[in-house]
Amino acid sequence: MGHKERLEKFAARLELSGFNAYICVNESNVFYFTGLPSPATLLIRRDGHAVLYVSPMNYGLAEKEAPQGVEVAHLKMGVAPEALLAEILSQLGGMVGIDSLDFETHRKISGLIGGVDLRPQSRLVWDMRMSKDTYEVEVIREACSVADKVMRAAADLLVPGIKESEVKAELTAEVYRRVGQEPAFMPIVAFGERSAHPHGPILRGAARDRVLKRGDVVVIDLGVKVEGYCSDLTRTFYIGSEMDERLRNTFESVIHAKALAQNIMRPGVSCSYVDDIARDYLSNKGLDAYFIHSLGHGVGIDIHEPPRIGPGSQDQFVENNVVTCEPGVYILGEWGVRMEDTLLVTEEAAIPLTSYPLDEYLIY
Amino acid sequence: MGHKERLEKFAARLELSGFNAYICVNESNVFYFTGLPSPATLLIRRDGHAVLYVSPMNYGLAEKEAPQGVEVAHLKMGVAPEALLAEILSQLGGMVGIDSLDFETHRKISGLIGGVDLRPQSRLVWDMRMSKDTYEVEVIREACSVADKVMRAAADLLVPGIKESEVKAELTAEVYRRVGQEPAFMPIVAFGERSAHPHGPILRGAARDRVLKRGDVVVIDLGVKVEGYCSDLTRTFYIGSEMDERLRNTFESVIHAKALAQNIMRPGVSCSYVDDIARDYLSNKGLDAYFIHSLGHGVGIDIHEPPRIGPGSQDQFVENNVVTCEPGVYILGEWGVRMEDTLLVTEEAAIPLTSYPLDEYLIY
Repeated sequence: MGHKERLEKFAARLELSGFNAYICVNESNVFYFTGLPSPATLLIRRDGHAVLYVSPMNYGLAEKEAPQGVEVAHLKMGVAPEALLAEILSQLGGMVGIDSLDFETHRKISGLIGGVDLRPQSRLVWDMRMSKDTYEVEVIREACSVADKVMRAAADLLVPGIKESEVKAELTAEVYRRVGQEPAFMPIVAFGERSAHPHGPILRGAARDRVLKRGDVVVIDLGVKVEGYCSDLTRTFYIGSEMDERLRNTFESVIHAKALAQNIMRPGVSCSYVDDIARDYLSNKGLDAYFIHSLGHGVGIDIHEPPRIGPGSQDQFVENNVVTCEPGVYILGEWGVRMEDTLLVTEEAAIPLTSYPLDEYLIY
Repeated sequence: MGHKERLEKFAARLELSGFNAYICVNESNVFYFTGLPSPATLLIRRDGHAVLYVSPMNYGLAEKEAPQGVEVAHLKMGVAPEALLAEILSQLGGMVGIDSLDFETHRKISGLIGGVDLRPQSRLVWDMRMSKDTYEVEVIREACSVADKVMRAAADLLVPGIKESEVKAELTAEVYRRVGQEPAFMPIVAFGERSAHPHGPILRGAARDRVLKRGDVVVIDLGVKVEGYCSDLTRTFYIGSEMDERLRNTFESVIHAKALAQNIMRPGVSCSYVDDIARDYLSNKGLDAYFIHSLGHGVGIDIHEPPRIGPGSQDQFVENNVVTCEPGVYILGEWGVRMEDTLLVTEEAAIPLTSYPLDEYLIY
């Protein structure tokens, strides 16, 4: 779907929901509708007319890159966001949606917007963004394919004596080499007891780095961005040929919990239920107390987006969701094991888009 | 200043401003008061008592790393932010500040918080954070010193035939080598006509990368993070021994505008006035229409923080501000020239903490 079609589809939804217009200030929403990555404000009217308000710094990019049918409006330097919002709203009436609004801004403008009924409702855009179109699936597939190759390059570096920072640097360089731009996020590389922290340890003082030793567990979590869309992939390795039974059971349990959860991801299924399935399985193995985060999340323009696949989530899967499935078990002071793939949810199956082998976790 | 002293100082400010308590949800504010980098919610009472609410994923780090005097409260998995906020507020009364609150959250909790007068007021923390203490200046100085060395390594790579992505990859690797962790932000490296976009071009399709040619202008904007604090440094180079007069005049004008602005940065001086000084000088040179962004911004835990040094800013400099000064001139389709240092504002002078030579811009 092109940007023009997205805008038309969204305008039809505005009409159906009784909105006269909608304002996007969230950077990734603006990118979704216009392909422009920089901070800007986008007004979409129910008739499909769209206006992109850009500051002087982005006149050049906007003039050159704005999609057909999007009018570009030039702001002066230093216009405060609340002043722009009040100005836009003064031309509107009735019910107007907005994707993000902080309380302070609302208070500042509430006296200036006359009869406008301004409603923060981010869900209206998410309902579209959560279901990826053909183009989006294609570029995410490419980002996933590169992630697999980068993971391979990273695994090849895991020789005792290398530092976490060296793996991160080389892994980042490999992303630059393969796609010409930066990773989707700064990679996590955690050795040994540091892998027990899902996002790695606090990099402070002497803890800024760590050398790899034989017998270490290694968690590597990386993502690639292609045409503005992310992939997300985690593998855990063990440096040695034989691990103790508890650790081996944990690897196998995490891999099995992941398969069970993936197997039931379908449109209409509750996200919290899928999380339950993985959690219950780990509970039977006595490991649920160590599965200390949600099972997964949506992936797209943002590395974390709806749906949330975790306890208490109100979300349901929809067709063409792209999501992660990433159970993990973390034993403080010892190690952590997490396995994560990015998947496409269809009527028939949740199809893994990343495909680095799950069973090649021994490195020796 | 240690975390304990910061909390005590802030508690005294709460008392003075009539607040009973204050809630930090902003990640960098939580880091400022506790040294903990992960998402968490911090309650600070006017008596100095502080409680850090952490999710299961961060129990381990919080137990190990929370500073003296900060109580760690364990949340269950999947507690919604608004539920936590309502729970905290139900134990409080009177005026309670918060650093960030979105309108939707406020609406959800407004019926649940009884007599609490909840006031979003981020400024209360910024008033402290804007003036760096001795420790903060020391680690930022280190981050700046490393940035200089990384810029030198990057400049050494600027031989015709190299790609933007290769410079970015090597520059990032150099940061990892020197400080053991990732850059403060993904570096900007823009060759030739791409340097006319302050944040670089949109990296889409064939535009994802570009090879360096003789006669190119090159903008490199990079930052390093040490102990959680950032530096920010930009230099512009020319690949060749002789440039045309218009380009040379632009380099010299940008450097001179920068010196003029830095010379008057002192506590009590208006930030918009300092921006004016640089802008007026460039106006006399006929270049102000091409200076399309603000002159600078604060730097600290965040790469962009108050004060804002630009048109219309209401901020004033205070002692021990750490800020950037970064005038730029951008000619669409041709080139851009930006020079940026990170500086410490004192009563006597604005002292550059980055010090890569401004006049070594010819590379041949």
